Amino acid sequence: MEKTKKIILDERELPEKWYNIQAEMPNKPLSMLNPATKTPLKAEDLYPIFAEELAQQELNQTDVWIDIPEEVRDLYKNYRCTPLVRAYGLEKALGTPAHIYFKNESVSPVGSHKLNSALAQAYYCKKQGITNITTETGAGQWGAALSYAACAFGLELAVYMVKISYEQKPYRRSIMQTFGAQVIASPSMSTKAGRKILTDHPNYQGSLGTAISEAIELAMNTPNCKYTLGSVLNHVILHQTVIGLEAEKQMQIAGEYPDVIIGCFGGGSNFGGIAFPFMRHNIKDDTKKTRFIAAEPASCPKLTRGVFQYDFGDETGYTPLLPMFTLGHNFSPAHIHAGGLRYHGAGVIASQMLKDKRIESVDIEQLDSFKAGMLFAQTEGIIPAPESNHAIAATINEANRCKETGEKKVILFNLSGHGLIDMVSYDKYIAGDLVNYSLSSEEIAKNVSKLEKIV
Amino acid sequence: MEKTKKIILDERELPEKWYNIQAEMPNKPLSMLNPATKTPLKAEDLYPIFAEELAQQELNQTDVWIDIPEEVRDLYKNYRCTPLVRAYGLEKALGTPAHIYFKNESVSPVGSHKLNSALAQAYYCKKQGITNITTETGAGQWGAALSYAACAFGLELAVYMVKISYEQKPYRRSIMQTFGAQVIASPSMSTKAGRKILTDHPNYQGSLGTAISEAIELAMNTPNCKYTLGSVLNHVILHQTVIGLEAEKQMQIAGEYPDVIIGCFGGGSNFGGIAFPFMRHNIKDDTKKTRFIAAEPASCPKLTRGVFQYDFGDETGYTPLLPMFTLGHNFSPAHIHAGGLRYHGAGVIASQMLKDKRIESVDIEQLDSFKAGMLFAQTEGIIPAPESNHAIAATINEANRCKETGEKKVILFNLSGHGLIDMVSYDKYIAGDLVNYSLSSEEIAKNVSKLEKIV
Repeated sequence: MEKTKKIILDERELPEKWYNIQAEMPNKPLSMLNPATKTPLKAEDLYPIFAEELAQQELNQTDVWIDIPEEVRDLYKNYRCTPLVRAYGLEKALGTPAHIYFKNESVSPVGSHKLNSALAQAYYCKKQGITNITTETGAGQWGAALSYAACAFGLELAVYMVKISYEQKPYRRSIMQTFGAQVIASPSMSTKAGRKILTDHPNYQGSLGTAISEAIELAMNTPNCKYTLGSVLNHVILHQTVIGLEAEKQMQIAGEYPDVIIGCFGGGSNFGGIAFPFMRHNIKDDTKKTRFIAAEPASCPKLTRGVFQYDFGDETGYTPLLPMFTLGHNFSPAHIHAGGLRYHGAGVIASQMLKDKRIESVDIEQLDSFKAGMLFAQTEGIIPAPESNHAIAATINEANRCKETGEKKVILFNLSGHGLIDMVSYDKYIAGDLVNYSLSSEEIAKNVSKLEKIV
Repeated sequence: MEKTKKIILDERELPEKWYNIQAEMPNKPLSMLNPATKTPLKAEDLYPIFAEELAQQELNQTDVWIDIPEEVRDLYKNYRCTPLVRAYGLEKALGTPAHIYFKNESVSPVGSHKLNSALAQAYYCKKQGITNITTETGAGQWGAALSYAACAFGLELAVYMVKISYEQKPYRRSIMQTFGAQVIASPSMSTKAGRKILTDHPNYQGSLGTAISEAIELAMNTPNCKYTLGSVLNHVILHQTVIGLEAEKQMQIAGEYPDVIIGCFGGGSNFGGIAFPFMRHNIKDDTKKTRFIAAEPASCPKLTRGVFQYDFGDETGYTPLLPMFTLGHNFSPAHIHAGGLRYHGAGVIASQMLKDKRIESVDIEQLDSFKAGMLFAQTEGIIPAPESNHAIAATINEANRCKETGEKKVILFNLSGHGLIDMVSYDKYIAGDLVNYSLSSEEIAKNVSKLEKIV
C-alpha cells in the first residue's frame, strides 16, 4: 500500500476510554495533602472546588480505563481524530536518518490540545447541575478552549487571564468573548488574592499562580460555581490521553513504534497526554525501551533544575499540597512568549516518573525554541505555538544526534498547537528583539528554600 | 453504518486532475482583450506577466481535465483532503429541517483555501526557471498562502499588502515574514502606480486594485520575475476545483446530493472551487436543479448590482480587459472587515454564469455577516473568517426558508477559512463598533459610467 504523509483515523475509531496511568504505576505518587491538616487528601476535600466526578478522577488509583462520556465523544468528533503526520520536510532539511512523526493537535478549532480536557470538565460540571465555572489562563490556549466548551454545555464562564497576556494577546481574549466568556485581567481587584498582590506590587504583570488563586477564590464565593484547571492535575492529563491512544493506533498503521516521545512541558498535560499511553507498554514490558522527553523552557526549568517537594499549585495557597518538582509557588518566571510553560511546578504523576527515571527532561532556551519553530514552519507549512517550539527543538536535537550516529530512530512529538495567534512573538524573533533568560542556581535555591519541608 | 459528523478522505483519494469548466460551458465567456489592440487575448500576451503554463490554463477552453502535477499533489497532502462536516450544531440552533454541510478549508495550515492555488502557481513558476514572484494581498489570506508556497519551492516573494490591512492585520504580515516573504504596504513609493496614487491622494488607505498594479509593475521590471494572483482569473479557480471534487466524493459517502451550494464571493475562487465541479452535472443533465449562490458584501455588490462590461482587473490598467460584472476598476469599497471580498469585479466564468442564470447572487450586510459568524462559532466551535461569514449568512437564510416551508433541502457551503487572525473584527462587532455600508444606486451608476463601452 502506498505510504501516506498523514495517518488519519475516522471518528468511529475515536477511543472510548481514557487511560489512567495512576492505576498501573509501580510506584504510586505520594498522596496530595490537605493543607490545613497535612493529612492525605480525600476526594471530598476537593468537592468545594471541583466537580465531584473530576475530584474522584483526580485520586483514582484503581481504574485503568475510564469511559469517555458519549456527550464528550460527540464533541470530540468535531475535530478528532487528529492526524499523525510524518515530517518528511523537516527530516530532509535536517538530513537525518531518523523518522520524525508529529501528532497534529493544532487542527483543533481553538488551535490546541486544550479542548480535550475543556470539553470533559465542562461536561462533568454540567452533569452535576453546576451553572457557573471559573478558570485562569496564561497564553490563552486553555481559556479559549474552555470558553468554547462552556458555550457548548451552556455554562457561564469567568476567566482570569494573566495581565501581560491580556494586554499582549488581545486576539485570545477576543476568542473567549466570541464564545461568550467573561475575561478579567489578573491580578484584579475582584478577589482578595488579587487585591493583596496589587497592594504589594501595583505594577505586577501577573502569573499563572496568581490567576489560579483568583479563579479558585471566585469559585468558592459564587453559588453553584466550580473551578477548572487546564493542566498539572491528574484528571486533566487523564483526558489528554486521547492524544496518545490515537497516536498508538496511528503508529501501528505506519508500521513503526516510537523510540523517543517528546512533548513540551508546562504543567504536563500535552506531554502526559501523548506519553502515558505509550509508557504503559514500558511499564508492562521490560524490553520496551521507549524514551520520554519533557521539553521545558530554560527560564522555568522545574523538572531539570527544580526540587522535589510538597508545594502549592497557586500563589496564595488555596490548592492542596502537591508532591512535585517545583521552583516554588512564589517563583515568577521571565516573560517568555511560551506563556503556557510559565508555571512553577510539574504534575504529580510526571514528577514521580522523573524520580523513577521513567522520563527525562531537557531545558530549551527561548531563541533555540523559535529557531526550531521557524525551521518547522518553513519545512512543514505549519507555524507552531511558542510552547510547541520547545518540543520541536528537542526533536531536532535528537534527530541531529541520529545524524551523527547514523541511527534510524523513530521520534514522535506532540504539536500541541499552532502559533497563528502568537505572531507577535515571531515578529520579535525575526526582528532580533527576543532574548534568552538565564536563571542562576542561587535564584532557584533562594526561592525553593522558602518552601515548607514536608518530605 | 454509523453516521459520522465529518466525512474524511485519505490523501490517496486526493483528486489527480483539476476540473476546467471553461471546456464544458455551453456559452463560452467572451474573449479577454489585449487592452492596446482590443483584439482577443492570446496566451503569449500574458507571458510577460504570468508563467507560461498558467497563461495557457487561463485561456484553455479545450481540456476538461488538467493533471495536478505530482509536486503539487505532494504538498496538497500536507493538509488535504479537507473534511466535509455536517453542521448538526447549527441545524439544531436554527431548528431547520435542512441538512447543512460545510467543506472545511480552514484546516489548511495558513487558515484558508488560498493555498490550493498558491502551491500550483509557485510550482509552475519554479518549473519555468523563474526565481522571483510578486503578488498583492488584501486581508492577507492569499499573501500568507503564497508565502508558504514560495518558501516550499524556493522562490523569492514580494507581497504588496493593502495599507489598511498592513496596519490592521499585523499578524498576517508576520506570517508572511515567517515564511521569508518581503511585505510592502500598498500604495508604496516603489512603483509608478503607487507613486501616482500617493501624489493624488496622500492618505489613500489602499485597495486590491492598486496593490495589483504595483505587483504587476514590479514583476515587469524585475529580471526573471512573474506576477501571481489569488483570485478572479480562470487558472486560479481551476486550481480551487480540488475543493468541489473532494466534496463531491464526500457527499456521495454521506449519501446526499446538494440542492444548494453557497460560497462567499470576492473574485470568485472559493465559490468557483466548490461550485464548478457540481455545476458540471447541471450542465450535462437538465434534471439536476442544484442552485449556486454567490454571497457578496452589500458594500461591494458587483454581481448583485454591478454591470456586465469589459473592465480592467487593476486600478492602473495593466491587466487585460476582462468581460465581467463590475463596479468599475476605480471603485473604492468601504473598509469592511472581509478584506478578501473588497474587489470591484467578478471572474469571467462566474460573470458568464450569472448572465446565463446558472448562478444567483445575494448581498449580505456586514452586521448580518458577523451575526451569522458568531452563531456558527458558538454552535460548531470554529470562528470563521469574516469573508466566510457571508456564506454562512446566506446559508442561514436558506435554512430558515426551509424551516418555513418544511423542505429538507441539502445545503453545502464552503468554509473558506478561519477567523483566528481576524479577531479584531469580532472584537469590534461585540463592542457594537461595526456598521453597515449602504451604497446608493447613484454612486454605482456614476462609477460604472466611467467605463469605456466595448460590449
